[in-house]
Amino acid sequence: MITLQDLNDAAPGDFVASLASIYEHSPWVAEEVATTRPFASLAALHAAMEQSVRAASTARQLALINAHPDLAGKLARAAGLTDFSAAEQSGIGLDRLNDSEFARFHSLNDSYRARFGFPFIICVRRHTRASVLRQFERRLHHDAAQEQATALNEITRIAALRLDQAVQAPDRLAVHGRLSTHVLDTHGGRPAPGISVTLFEVEPDGTLFTRAQRITNADGRTDSPLISGQPLPIGTYELRFSIGVHYAGLADLPDPPFLDEIPLRFSIAEPEGHYHVPLLMTPWSYATYRGS
Amino acid sequence: MITLQDLNDAAPGDFVASLASIYEHSPWVAEEVATTRPFASLAALHAAMEQSVRAASTARQLALINAHPDLAGKLARAAGLTDFSAAEQSGIGLDRLNDSEFARFHSLNDSYRARFGFPFIICVRRHTRASVLRQFERRLHHDAAQEQATALNEITRIAALRLDQAVQAPDRLAVHGRLSTHVLDTHGGRPAPGISVTLFEVEPDGTLFTRAQRITNADGRTDSPLISGQPLPIGTYELRFSIGVHYAGLADLPDPPFLDEIPLRFSIAEPEGHYHVPLLMTPWSYATYRGS
Amino acid sequence: MITLQDLNDAAPGDFVASLASIYEHSPWVAEEVATTRPFASLAALHAAMEQSVRAASTARQLALINAHPDLAGKLARAAGLTDFSAAEQSGIGLDRLNDSEFARFHSLNDSYRARFGFPFIICVRRHTRASVLRQFERRLHHDAAQEQATALNEITRIAALRLDQAVQAPDRLAVHGRLSTHVLDTHGGRPAPGISVTLFEVEPDGTLFTRAQRITNADGRTDSPLISGQPLPIGTYELRFSIGVHYAGLADLPDPPFLDEIPLRFSIAEPEGHYHVPLLMTPWSYATYRGS
Amino acid sequence: MITLQDLNDAAPGDFVASLASIYEHSPWVAEEVATTRPFASLAALHAAMEQSVRAASTARQLALINAHPDLAGKLARAAGLTDFSAAEQSGIGLDRLNDSEFARFHSLNDSYRARFGFPFIICVRRHTRASVLRQFERRLHHDAAQEQATALNEITRIAALRLDQAVQAPDRLAVHGRLSTHVLDTHGGRPAPGISVTLFEVEPDGTLFTRAQRITNADGRTDSPLISGQPLPIGTYELRFSIGVHYAGLADLPDPPFLDEIPLRFSIAEPEGHYHVPLLMTPWSYATYRGS
Repeated sequence: MITLQDLNDAAPGDFVASLASIYEHSPWVAEEVATTRPFASLAALHAAMEQSVRAASTARQLALINAHPDLAGKLARAAGLTDFSAAEQSGIGLDRLNDSEFARFHSLNDSYRARFGFPFIICVRRHTRASVLRQFERRLHHDAAQEQATALNEITRIAALRLDQAVQAPDRLAVHGRLSTHVLDTHGGRPAPGISVTLFEVEPDGTLFTRAQRITNADGRTDSPLISGQPLPIGTYELRFSIGVHYAGLADLPDPPFLDEIPLRFSIAEPEGHYHVPLLMTPWSYATYRGS
Repeated sequence: MITLQDLNDAAPGDFVASLASIYEHSPWVAEEVATTRPFASLAALHAAMEQSVRAASTARQLALINAHPDLAGKLARAAGLTDFSAAEQSGIGLDRLNDSEFARFHSLNDSYRARFGFPFIICVRRHTRASVLRQFERRLHHDAAQEQATALNEITRIAALRLDQAVQAPDRLAVHGRLSTHVLDTHGGRPAPGISVTLFEVEPDGTLFTRAQRITNADGRTDSPLISGQPLPIGTYELRFSIGVHYAGLADLPDPPFLDEIPLRFSIAEPEGHYHVPLLMTPWSYATYRGS
Repeated sequence: MITLQDLNDAAPGDFVASLASIYEHSPWVAEEVATTRPFASLAALHAAMEQSVRAASTARQLALINAHPDLAGKLARAAGLTDFSAAEQSGIGLDRLNDSEFARFHSLNDSYRARFGFPFIICVRRHTRASVLRQFERRLHHDAAQEQATALNEITRIAALRLDQAVQAPDRLAVHGRLSTHVLDTHGGRPAPGISVTLFEVEPDGTLFTRAQRITNADGRTDSPLISGQPLPIGTYELRFSIGVHYAGLADLPDPPFLDEIPLRFSIAEPEGHYHVPLLMTPWSYATYRGS
Repeated sequence: MITLQDLNDAAPGDFVASLASIYEHSPWVAEEVATTRPFASLAALHAAMEQSVRAASTARQLALINAHPDLAGKLARAAGLTDFSAAEQSGIGLDRLNDSEFARFHSLNDSYRARFGFPFIICVRRHTRASVLRQFERRLHHDAAQEQATALNEITRIAALRLDQAVQAPDRLAVHGRLSTHVLDTHGGRPAPGISVTLFEVEPDGTLFTRAQRITNADGRTDSPLISGQPLPIGTYELRFSIGVHYAGLADLPDPPFLDEIPLRFSIAEPEGHYHVPLLMTPWSYATYRGS
């Protein structure tokens, strides 16, 4: 990481070198803003770089779009990606698709490129694999102008995440969401500590992929959110609470108890949102809601 | 089916023939009660037969126990079962175990028989496969007297179900449970019609096996209960409600919506109980409880 | 009560005499439909009488409107009301207004009569006193044509309630609503019997007027609905549940307990609707909703 | 207020003068601990003073008990109270009892003094008037030893509150509770801002006495708790939420709406506890629970 102060003070060449990959294989964006330093904040630096891209000629914008790798394409299994791109694509498991999934992505990618003449660009850190597929299918029906605009928007989102990761500054770009929970025992009138909570991502075929695991603390919360410090990938999730042990000592409970593993299933649509999904429970009832 | 009246009026031989299999391969039970006719109710007939078994010598009781087939044993895949036994065991899928499950049942069965000298008897219509396995493992730790008593209790339960199925009478033995649901839309303040509801049995390995499917009617209920007219098999279930379509027309819903498929997971411990498991929902919250 | 059959068979004069007061002081309505007998149902009789009123000349309609007493006016404290009118007005307490309320009603009545030239007519059995006042104030802003139409609609509603009360027939006019409740103990997973439930009407000044009192039965319901066999008066209500005694035996409850008297406050807007207002409770939580 | 540092540094006479009224009319408690200075914390000072009282002779303890005013007695309307006592007793309205309440307190007080020979002492800031009366009636059935112990415990609680109020220190004695709320709109899936919330104390005769009023902020919470910075008086409360305005713009709502003013009624039993009493609501349902 480099500090914003150091970026402001750096020789122009060093400045450009530091930010060359914020926009994929396109150091010219950093070059254009190098002369407008100093930047008072990370937000100002991001805004300047975005402005430079938006003001560029269509040809240059298309070149920027074309500088991006095919999503999960041949390149993704070989060389040629920036480190940023490689990390982003592996984060949602695009580097470990099975053969049929790889084929499907490849086919969608080919259709997209055939139709629009440039690769499908999406800020993958804001999506699950299921959501990437859904976006792929939708965007194939758009026209070229729409997709060019969408690609630039996604590139801007990617740039914001890369900047936030690369530069230390007093301000942060608003690129992170948070998913938290809370377990309240309304049978006993108090928070429920010691409850094991697992967060699963629900894959397109219905299988569950473990994303996080926590134990509730004395206040019925988890010491850290289930997801934070990153965008919340758009997709469907299941939170599963093992509550059987909490009520195991009660008299008069049936065997097996009415409730034991409680699943809460919900979808996230706002990657930068705050999702609080609590569980209110007794041995005989439970409730959840999107809280705040 | 034969009526209670006809049983009361039948020649003794016909009476015994009709009830010969209520207790497995043991027509002597029917013989003993033939002389105490007429029976005012099915409950009186059942009580008399049970009394006859309870009053029999230990040797005769052991013979009755030994007249039962091994659960899912060699006999279950071949000949020698009464029709009743065959139907009961296939009902919970004991006739289609895979090889490893079959091996596990077989091994438990052998251990049980080696320890107690008679087959493991359980009223399978009151259990899921998971619950049968749990009972098997628990009962292996009992002593012989306990297991002899348990076997007779289970045989009495089996007999009650067979009687209820074979004899038409004004009264029914209370051997049936009921599982029902209800979908209330507390966003709109009215029942939710047209909701697809699926009942799954949760198998020991966590996979879901479809048990029933219903669509809610204008009152948010299903035209018939999810399970009725039989005992509720002890086990763990998941009710899944497809609510996405119900709210699809609303403005201001995110994409994907916060809630779409709602799973409710609970266990049944009382096969003769009434379980009402409703869903109260909005696009942003849901709740359930054991109702009545 | 007279049967529909007897009405169909009666001499014309007796028919008219039986139904002379269904429309206030206006036997001509019955006269006009006497010749169209027989009526296959109470609904058919009601429809015929309404049709006769709707087809009458404006002068005759105005005479019908003017045949009604001033609401809570001087007549209400003296002679000249039909028995029907007297019973209807006493039902919501218009016969026991205090002096200031009487003055307010009188003043609204005078304003209304001054503006429209006929008395304010409302089917009082569908309203609480608070709701009558609100209607009074709203309808004073209407024009004459609107109010003439509203008056005829209200007269038709009054006639339906009177017919339903006076004539025995296989069918009933849909003039009744129902208010019911249910108490579920989600701490114990079962209905809560023996809970005292009181229904209050919330008066315009916030004071509570007792309308009904019930004790929940073994199923957590009341043996009879809180209101039934009549329209539900439009207005605001409070249901109060004394739950303290239900949990009194529990260990670990604080003194005083967190919950003891639980008030549920709601309004009824559909006099012919079915309102189910259940209570789900633990010693530490409660919930309600409009059910079905 | 004086700082703990200043108390540690003060001349003995000044130290005693500063703390003379922490124990009612009993400067000897401060005198005894003056020599054990310095105190590292407020808790240590409080513990030392309590220890001094507990170690005193029975005669001295009785003198301390007798130094307290009669609760709401003649003294309370006249002179002779420490400033602390006067403020404490007026806080719960003991200075504005009506004649019959005053008579009841007086009579209980006389019975108590006749039975035990000393005044009834209670830390009134931890109670509502209803709760003081209930304690009065219970404690009249105790024996003298119990009441002497109870009186000393109450005096210690009073001293803690006075110390916490009088001395500035890095630590606080745990003498405060907190009552907060939160309004979540589960119809819209977000917090409900702009909701007027009123907290009433429910008086012994059922009337409501306004204790606090707040408006919910953008997060559905109130900017400050409903009660904080003091013990929560033991008693029964009603929170009333005016939600009608929040849903006023919705289509398809009945007139009047099903829900408008929502009352939540509950009791507080732990003056030093944290009570979070949220409201989850739609136009057709609501729920509450003791949260954390």
